[in-house]
Parts: sequence; C-alpha cells; structure tokens
Amino acid sequence: MTARTIGVTEVALRDAHQSLMATRMAMEDMVDACTDIDQAGYWSVECWGGATYDSCIRFLNEDPWRRLRTFRELMPNSRLQMLLRGQNLLGYRHYEDLVVDKFVEKSAENGMDVFRVFDALNDPRNMERAMKAVAKTGKHAQGTICYTISPLHTTEGYIKLAGQLLDMGAQSIALKDMAALLQPQPAYDIVKGIKDTYGDIQVNVHCHSTTGVTLVSLMKAIEAGADVVDTAVSSMSLGPGHNPTESLVAMLEGTGYTTDLDMERLLRIRDHFAKVRPKYAEFESATLVDTDIFSSQIPGGMLSNMESQLRAQGAGDRIRDVMAEVPLVKADAGHPPLVTPSSQIVGTQAVFNVLMGKYKVLTGEFADLMLGYYGECIGERNPEVVEIARAQTKKEPIDVRPADLLAPEWDKLVTDASQLTGADGSDEDVLTYAMFPSVAPGFFEKRDEGPKNVGKTAEQMADQAAAKSDADRAVRGPITYRVSLGGRDHSVTVERA
Amino acid sequence: MTARTIGVTEVALRDAHQSLMATRMAMEDMVDACTDIDQAGYWSVECWGGATYDSCIRFLNEDPWRRLRTFRELMPNSRLQMLLRGQNLLGYRHYEDLVVDKFVEKSAENGMDVFRVFDALNDPRNMERAMKAVAKTGKHAQGTICYTISPLHTTEGYIKLAGQLLDMGAQSIALKDMAALLQPQPAYDIVKGIKDTYGDIQVNVHCHSTTGVTLVSLMKAIEAGADVVDTAVSSMSLGPGHNPTESLVAMLEGTGYTTDLDMERLLRIRDHFAKVRPKYAEFESATLVDTDIFSSQIPGGMLSNMESQLRAQGAGDRIRDVMAEVPLVKADAGHPPLVTPSSQIVGTQAVFNVLMGKYKVLTGEFADLMLGYYGECIGERNPEVVEIARAQTKKEPIDVRPADLLAPEWDKLVTDASQLTGADGSDEDVLTYAMFPSVAPGFFEKRDEGPKNVGKTAEQMADQAAAKSDADRAVRGPITYRVSLGGRDHSVTVERA
Repeated sequence: MTARTIGVTEVALRDAHQSLMATRMAMEDMVDACTDIDQAGYWSVECWGGATYDSCIRFLNEDPWRRLRTFRELMPNSRLQMLLRGQNLLGYRHYEDLVVDKFVEKSAENGMDVFRVFDALNDPRNMERAMKAVAKTGKHAQGTICYTISPLHTTEGYIKLAGQLLDMGAQSIALKDMAALLQPQPAYDIVKGIKDTYGDIQVNVHCHSTTGVTLVSLMKAIEAGADVVDTAVSSMSLGPGHNPTESLVAMLEGTGYTTDLDMERLLRIRDHFAKVRPKYAEFESATLVDTDIFSSQIPGGMLSNMESQLRAQGAGDRIRDVMAEVPLVKADAGHPPLVTPSSQIVGTQAVFNVLMGKYKVLTGEFADLMLGYYGECIGERNPEVVEIARAQTKKEPIDVRPADLLAPEWDKLVTDASQLTGADGSDEDVLTYAMFPSVAPGFFEKRDEGPKNVGKTAEQMADQAAAKSDADRAVRGPITYRVSLGGRDHSVTVERA
Repeated sequence: MTARTIGVTEVALRDAHQSLMATRMAMEDMVDACTDIDQAGYWSVECWGGATYDSCIRFLNEDPWRRLRTFRELMPNSRLQMLLRGQNLLGYRHYEDLVVDKFVEKSAENGMDVFRVFDALNDPRNMERAMKAVAKTGKHAQGTICYTISPLHTTEGYIKLAGQLLDMGAQSIALKDMAALLQPQPAYDIVKGIKDTYGDIQVNVHCHSTTGVTLVSLMKAIEAGADVVDTAVSSMSLGPGHNPTESLVAMLEGTGYTTDLDMERLLRIRDHFAKVRPKYAEFESATLVDTDIFSSQIPGGMLSNMESQLRAQGAGDRIRDVMAEVPLVKADAGHPPLVTPSSQIVGTQAVFNVLMGKYKVLTGEFADLMLGYYGECIGERNPEVVEIARAQTKKEPIDVRPADLLAPEWDKLVTDASQLTGADGSDEDVLTYAMFPSVAPGFFEKRDEGPKNVGKTAEQMADQAAAKSDADRAVRGPITYRVSLGGRDHSVTVERA
C-alpha cells in the first residue's frame, strides 16, 4: 500500500514568530533560511499577513510589500501563503469592497499564492468578498473555520459553515485552532464530516500547541482525511506556537501517511532559527504548556490582558469575578469565538461589568458587537443587552453585512495618502495607509532609514550571557573591590544592606 | 458505549525530576503535593528508585528509606511504584541473588507496591530474580521492555520478550521508551501484538517527550489496548521529561477512552510544582524538543557526554567521526539499547576508537560488555572484538547469567556496614552500603544533620530575580557610587578589573 502524502505548511516565517515573539522577527533574520525552506518540499510557506504587516511598519520600519517581494524572490518554487482577516484585511475595521479587491489584487501581484481568509465571528459574509477577489486573481482562496468550544458550537455547525464557504468559492477549507482547543476527537469528526459531506475537498488543519495535545489532533485529522497540516520547525515551535515540523515527520513514519519533506533541509532550517530565536527572548512568554483553557474557556493572552486591566484599576483581586463573568458576556454576545478582536471586546466588557456594575457602561466596541456591526455570531444576542447598547450609542442594530453600509472609500484613501510625506504614490502605499492610518504617516517619513532589527545583536547576546553568568553565580554576598581614591588604592568590601 | 478507563502513572515524584533537574528535588518540596496526588485517581505514583536513591545519599543527605516511608504515610490510598534495574538493583553492578531478595523484601516492607523491573540490555535473565522476589512479597512485578531502534529490533522481537517476562512471573508488561524514540505506529503494533499474543495482560507505556511526538504514541498505544500510561503533571513535563498529565486527559475527552483523574486535584498539583520547579533551574537543560535522535540514533545525553570527553582531549573537532563510530561499536556489541549504562560504555569506546585507533584500547566496561559480563544482547557480538577483549583483560567470555558467577555476599555486607560510623545496624543501611559503598560511609556519618535542599531558597530566588533584572539591563560599564567613608562623602567609580 502506498502511503498517502500529507502536505505541510511551514509557519516559521509568520505565525510562529507572531505567537512566540510578538511578530518581531526582522527580515534579515529570515532570509538565510529561505532557500532551504523553498527546497524542503512544503505544500506552502506561510510568511505574510496576520500581524506581520502591522509589526513591519510599527516596530521594524520595514515595508511589508517589499518583504513580500523578497520572499517571492527567495522562494521561487513555493506557494507563499498569507492570513487575511476577511473584510478587515490586515487592519482592525471593515473595509469597503473595492479596498478589499485592491488589497487582494496587489497581494497577488506582489507574489502571494494562497489566501487563508477568516473572520473572527465565523460570519461567512465577512469572508465572501475577499475570497471572490482571490478567485479573480487566479490564486488559491482558502475559507476558514475558527474553531471554538461553546454550548452552541457543534460538529454539524462547523460542517455547515464549510459548505457555506465552499458555496462562496473557497477552493479549500482551513480548520483554524488558534487557542489550541481542538481535541483529537472533534478534529477527527469535523474533518471526516467535511470530507463525507462535500467530497474530496482539500482540508488544511492549523493548530497551536499551547495545551500540549494538538499534535495528536493533527494525527486524528490526518486519519480523517486532512490533506495539509501546519507546523513550525522545531526551533520555532511549542509553547503558544505550533507543533514541531520534525515531530510531525517522525509521527507519520511507518503509518499509512507520509510527508515529502527533506529532513536534511529541515535540520538546516532548524539550526538557523535555533541561533535566531534567543535574540528575541525578551518578547517570549514563559508558557510551556497550559491546559487551563479547557476548563476556563479563556485563552491565556486574554486572561493576562484582563489581569493587567484590573491591576491598573487597583482591582487585581477581582480576577475570579471577571473569569466568572466572561462566559456570561460571551453568551450575551451570541457565543463569538474568543480570538482577536472578539476576545479583547468580551474581556474588557467583563472587566467593566465587574468594576462598574453589569452593563452599566458598555465599551464602544462591545456595543458595536451587540448591534451587529462586526457581523453575526452563531447564537442570538441577548435582546436586553442589545437594547442597552442602542440606548447608549444611539445607533440602530443591523442585520445586513456590515460592509454593505460602507460608502466607496478608495479614491479618498488615494487622495489622503498622496499628501503624506514619503508616500510613493503606489497602490501599496495607499493600502498601508488604509490599514494603519495613524502609523503609516510616521513610517512613510522614515522609510528611507531602512529596516530595524529589534532583536539583540551578537554583542548584546555576549554581554547578556556574561551578566547572566554573574547572576547565576549568585554572588550576592560581600564583594571586595580595589578602589582608587585620591591617588591611593583601597580595598573596599561592598555588601547589600 | 462506555468509554474504557485508562490508568495513569504520575511520574512527577521520580522520573520527571530525574529527567528535568538531575534528580535533585528535595523531599520537602514534594510533601505538600502528596495529598492531592494521593486523591487524584492515579493508577500508581512513581516516587522511588531510578536515580533517586543515589541522589538522596549523594546530594541531599537524605535517607532514601525514610523518603519511602514518608511517601507511604502521605499517600495511603495509592500504589507506590519504583523503577528497579533488575540484578543491578539501584546500583551499578550485578548483585548476588540474596541481596536482590533482601532489597525487594525491604522495599515492600517499607511501602513499595509496584516494582518496574528492567535491564539495560533487555536480558530477561537479569530481571528474573527480582521479579520472583517481588512475587514472594505479594507485590506487583512489572516486566519491562526497553524500546530502541536497530536493524535487529523488531516488533516480533519485543512481543517475544514480553512473553519471556510473563513466563518469569511478570504481572504486567511495561514498554519503556527512555529516549522518546517510540513512534506512533510501532507503539500501536507492539501493544497490539502483546495483547493479541498473550491475551488481556496489563500493558503500561512509558514515554519521554524529548522528540515531541510521543503523546501521539500514547494515543496509538491506548487504541491498541494499553491499560496504563505514564505522564507528569504539566508544570513538571516536556523537554527531556514526559508528556503532560492534563494534556493526556484533554486528549482522551470525547474518545472511547477516559481517565479517572480529578482535574481540580491535577491543577493543584500543577500549581504546587510550578512554584517548585524554578528553584532547580540551574539543573535543567535547555532542550525543548530534539528530533535528532531519529537520524543519529544517539540520545542527547550521550552526545553531550562524548563531546565533553573529546574536548577534554583537545579533540572537540572529532565529534562527527565519533558519531559515525557509535553505530559500528553498537553493532559490534550486538546492538544493545543505548541507555545507562550501555550508552556510556558504547560512547566512551567510540571516543577511544577515534582517538587511539579502532579497538587499540578497550575500556574495562566495554571489554566486560563484549565478554558477556553485562548479559546478552539481541545480536551476536563481533568475535574479533571479543577476542581483543579476552586478550586485553585475560578474562574469559561467559554465556551464563552474570550473577550466577557471584558468591553469596550478604553476610559480608552486613559485617562491613556494621563497622561504619553512623550505620544503625538495619538491613536498610546494609543495602545502602551495598548499593553505594563509596558514598554510604560519608552519608551515614552526616545523616543526623538532616536532609539538605539544593534548590534555591525563596530569598535566593528573589535575589536572583533582582540580579537577572540587573543583567537584563546589561549595566556592564563603570558605575559611580556616592560613598561615605570616615565621615566624608566621596564619588567613587567602580569598574570590573
């Protein structure tokens, strides 16, 4: 029997450093790995989108479009893949359809091949335009299911959503598990259900590794028929990131499945990033494995956000109350998956409820969520809270696709962007401005200074190692120094008081 | 359909800290977790044996027998489990049978319930006496298969070994994967083979997590019928340790399998060790995941041993040669699994071969291995190398069970131990002396001073955090202090000489 070949998407260049080191990796720390990545036999290379665009212009003084073109040049044999937030593109609001079209068109033109399109609320209407725009460019449109757990989320519901995405033109379906909640059995059931219902449509599975269990979920998904799975080379893996690519290869050895990956190349990619990762240690969280989310339903990042909000209000001791409030707020909102931005919106409202009284004050974002301005959730929104939102904001609830209410905005964006110092008149610059209107002007102005590397330099790494070695020796007791004072040498013993 | 209940052995109190922190955890850092461990619903609690005995008397000034009795007292509802190196007991040589009997008898008397008996060469003759001794006490004798990969090791061979162990009276079979080499498919095949061949005999599976793939192997072993699997609570898991207990629980949710574990208790156990683990950070390795062993066949610990041996000889650049030599030496020795002590024996000989010429000099241990004094391996030993060993050592090769050549030694051990200052005349002390004749005398002398904790104190942790924060700030340049000296203020600049 010939083993079935499982495709692999390598996420080291995008989601891995987004999850492990706050998306801070500089392009110069990636380029040397690109040839090996290009030749290793991946199904695709995720390398753009998500938070990388934001991070490029906000922290790295790097043009994200130039990064894309560089990847295209360095990896001529690979499918380049990006994560796209549907109607939000890579920004944090809904864009009018022509902006969506333009963004997709320019991304394809600059080298993008596979567009993984998702919506935080799983509202297919927020994904449709982007997928259709991808289809128009002849590139690969992947419709995405954000996996979450709630009383309303069922295997059948996810299978139905896959069907809606396929009807809208998705060429493949991604099952996206950003919180590492996807356990082996539902992984199997959902993939199997999609395959049984819609025939041999390509299914990609994306899991984070935070809970320590999702490599097993990938195995089960593969047994159920999954075609492509996402992993990160081992030196860029685990914790809040992803399962190790080499472990996936080892996992499948001897089974009825295999990968086409070249282990020699993988080890070189691994060695490259093993040297790079420590440079960004200051951006890493200490989380190795965290299974709390299975009981709390609250992703780790959301929890720490709420804790710091509470501490800022001198109410750090109320975290248990807030944790109890979260599921209530989430239910009132119709059970949105808790991912960016819904996790922040629900979490902040839960904090407000505990500190100021239940729905006494709504955040603008939470009111918008309740009024339908982010789209539809799987569940009905609590009508009483919708009423409060309407009263507070004087806005009416909507049930149309949010972007339907937007007027054409491209021409105005062109005009506004053209007035910015340093903007080069390209559509790409207009899109950068559209995405991040408050950050883009500063970026355009300083773009000529070239990319910054916020990781530690080799010299800083050496200094830090030396300092750490001092600290490890824990010489905290008295230290005797030779001190020169007024031309005379003294022996001085110094000790912590 | 009722889910099948999978038993869990918690290894936090033995193998986890042996693997993660060089077996250094002090008893006082364990006692507070014991009630929760006792009540959490584990099949057994591994808490003694392996390197803990050695570490107790060598580093912690703690009586290992007292540790066992304390565990017995603190966990009255649990099966206590130990790892026993067959005829080697917990020492590093073969003991005469009456010493084996005595050790097992006293261990049972002091509270041990489950004896996992193994031999580094998988020679059943080295396990038989210990298992029979366990049977005599009415306790549980578990026969162990050390899993390794070689041209001679086959699923059928492992199944046959299981049968030999069952014939010798093993009440259950442990499949022990100390190098995290057990991939999902062989895990399934071996467990299935044992079940199919010998009926419903209990199978326990023990995997380390070093390669990142073995939680999947546990899933496959469970699907094949495994009854009990070993894990460590998450805060004591991963890296060179084991898969996280909570992840196992999450993995099985919704499948046809379940555990009886109490998640509330698990989280308390986790929180306890999350506080303890950082105290022992200096003993931890940085390995998070390492899949090299699949290609090199050389466990990480063995590799670093060989590297330091080479560096000590000023030959650090020869490591590639040594790595190429290891499989040849291993084949000449008949393909022993590479675990303590065979990994050191084979590794050191490979270093000797590279530095001094092939088999120009044999270590005493390697000669003994070649001459059969450690027992039989799965493969034939290279007769030419056996001849060299015979010529160098003037010892004859043997094919009997090594311990058959030993004269009764218990009475002499009693006499010798009784002459040591501080020895209390108990059989337990005789056994401590028997196991570690060079360490025991010093331990007996100082036993009254009580156990030491080699972890950092709360104060040291705070100091270290402060020092680390200094180091992070990387203030390495000159620092100017205002110093009051003899009633006058001086400005003093201090700089490392």
